[in-house]
Amino acid sequence: MNRPITLTEVCLRDGSHVMNHQFTVQQVKHIAAALDHAGVHYIEVSHGDGLGGSTLQYGRSLVSELTLIEEAVSVCRNAKIAVLLIPGIGTVRDLKAARDVGASLVRVASHVTEADVTAEHIRVARELGMETCGFLMMAHMASVEETVIQALKMERYGAQAVYVTDSAGAMLPHEVKAVITALREALTIEIGFHGHNNLSLAVANTLVAVEAGATRIDGSVRCLGAGAGNAQTEVLVAVLDRLGMQLGINLYELQDLAEHTIAKLLPHSQEITTDSLIMGYAGVYSSFLLHAQRAATRFGLESRDVLVEVGKRKAVGGQEDLIMDVAAEMAKKKEALL
Amino acid sequence: MNRPITLTEVCLRDGSHVMNHQFTVQQVKHIAAALDHAGVHYIEVSHGDGLGGSTLQYGRSLVSELTLIEEAVSVCRNAKIAVLLIPGIGTVRDLKAARDVGASLVRVASHVTEADVTAEHIRVARELGMETCGFLMMAHMASVEETVIQALKMERYGAQAVYVTDSAGAMLPHEVKAVITALREALTIEIGFHGHNNLSLAVANTLVAVEAGATRIDGSVRCLGAGAGNAQTEVLVAVLDRLGMQLGINLYELQDLAEHTIAKLLPHSQEITTDSLIMGYAGVYSSFLLHAQRAATRFGLESRDVLVEVGKRKAVGGQEDLIMDVAAEMAKKKEALL
Repeated sequence: MNRPITLTEVCLRDGSHVMNHQFTVQQVKHIAAALDHAGVHYIEVSHGDGLGGSTLQYGRSLVSELTLIEEAVSVCRNAKIAVLLIPGIGTVRDLKAARDVGASLVRVASHVTEADVTAEHIRVARELGMETCGFLMMAHMASVEETVIQALKMERYGAQAVYVTDSAGAMLPHEVKAVITALREALTIEIGFHGHNNLSLAVANTLVAVEAGATRIDGSVRCLGAGAGNAQTEVLVAVLDRLGMQLGINLYELQDLAEHTIAKLLPHSQEITTDSLIMGYAGVYSSFLLHAQRAATRFGLESRDVLVEVGKRKAVGGQEDLIMDVAAEMAKKKEALL
Repeated sequence: MNRPITLTEVCLRDGSHVMNHQFTVQQVKHIAAALDHAGVHYIEVSHGDGLGGSTLQYGRSLVSELTLIEEAVSVCRNAKIAVLLIPGIGTVRDLKAARDVGASLVRVASHVTEADVTAEHIRVARELGMETCGFLMMAHMASVEETVIQALKMERYGAQAVYVTDSAGAMLPHEVKAVITALREALTIEIGFHGHNNLSLAVANTLVAVEAGATRIDGSVRCLGAGAGNAQTEVLVAVLDRLGMQLGINLYELQDLAEHTIAKLLPHSQEITTDSLIMGYAGVYSSFLLHAQRAATRFGLESRDVLVEVGKRKAVGGQEDLIMDVAAEMAKKKEALL
């Protein structure tokens, strides 16, 4: 437990969602240079959906992410540039290209129950000499035991750390504690935690994860990230400092970056709104929102009710069709009650 | 531990700070009626600094708080109207007037180490037949033992509940757990918790408080409150529901109030900014901010450094003069090092 805590700043990856993938070269250089100067350990730079995400389906990036990665690398003296890779969206070829322009860490991601799909990408990443982590997304959808099994697979594939990724911001502190504790006991590699703030618990969950043995944490300056945003980096640095854990990151420089740059980029503030709260409460993908609204309109229901029901059925990305079926069924039940 | 959890909504009192005390009759009636309809138990209506706060020093209210209290009472079928009373700002006379227009609960507040000043006001409130609570502000500034002593005094004066009030949003979850646990063991009356979000921990701290035995909690819709705002009521309701604790409050109605009314009133969003984070980190009153900025300018320092130093010295409201002395001393030390 004497490993130092390292932080990955995700505003240039998770924040890509908020920016509708329209980051400019100038913005990325300015932000990466400031993060590097402040002492941030890793800076993730990718399309919001990872390498290769710039498509019609996930949203086209303004600037090729390879260019953004290369520019970020060029301004960093100490910080390492990380990339996200979701097999099925990004390929081994994308990964090699990112490595060639200077990315040195990759987080290979899958749905929490599907670590199998990461085997090849983790193996190749290690062969490429990259620092390689597994990233188990939508972690609230699996039991502790299932998560341990999936993480063990990633360890076996060669991952040097595994992250519990609370993509929907749906995890409660006692759940984070349970899963991180179990992973800490089962694995020999480092454990990470990536939290979203839909239930206003991202910072608290990160603290719980660290207390339970996580040594890698994620944050985003000014919460710039999907849903209600991520654990706010400058707050994490301040709170961990209060707990006697110095990350070697300059709080004031982060605050200045947040206030003078990031806050001005935000198309809307990262508050917890009806939609983001419901995502966290129901534990569903943000991309389900529009589908639920359409289904609700069609069947005369509240979209929130549809989302909660879809969450109960543990629908995962790709099952968007299910939403219309669920709404139809709910409408039928409602009618039967009248 | 089978007492139900009751919630006091503070957007019409703590939120008064954000609104620069300019709430209109129409706004208060609309919000109070919506909160009442949603099933909120108590609605606090007062100037941000409590009864009698409408002064040049604390900021004049647009509408007399007695009028606002009376109008709020008039639209509530079930919710009770609460008021805040800080002896020294508000008087026994103010309290009687509030009771006469229908306020039925009062929270008598003091700095965490100065419960003595609440004795007379608590006694009178009980004689007036009001539900009467003690409210220990800036709770992060006292040890657990000291807080227990002060709370026991309030119990002896006749308080029917005592709140731990994290005015600066400076408490960490383990600190909340320690003090609520100790109070639960020492007192026979109910314990409450009022959290601010300067360290992004308001909701998490409230959960910890409930787990440790608090049965009264405070929230503010859309975080409308001083500093970085309060624990967000609609989030609290959702999270407690996930934990199996139903407050009997309609989540959707709160969300609609947040989205369609409160969000539109906000002069700025309730994000965690440089200033609000530093208040929580340093554990100082928000009113120290301007003084620290002035002192920093005069002595060529960073205002953040001045605030952190003032926090270390545990300065309390009224000690604004100390800030200039601290800055002078810091400047001298800095000079000696050059």
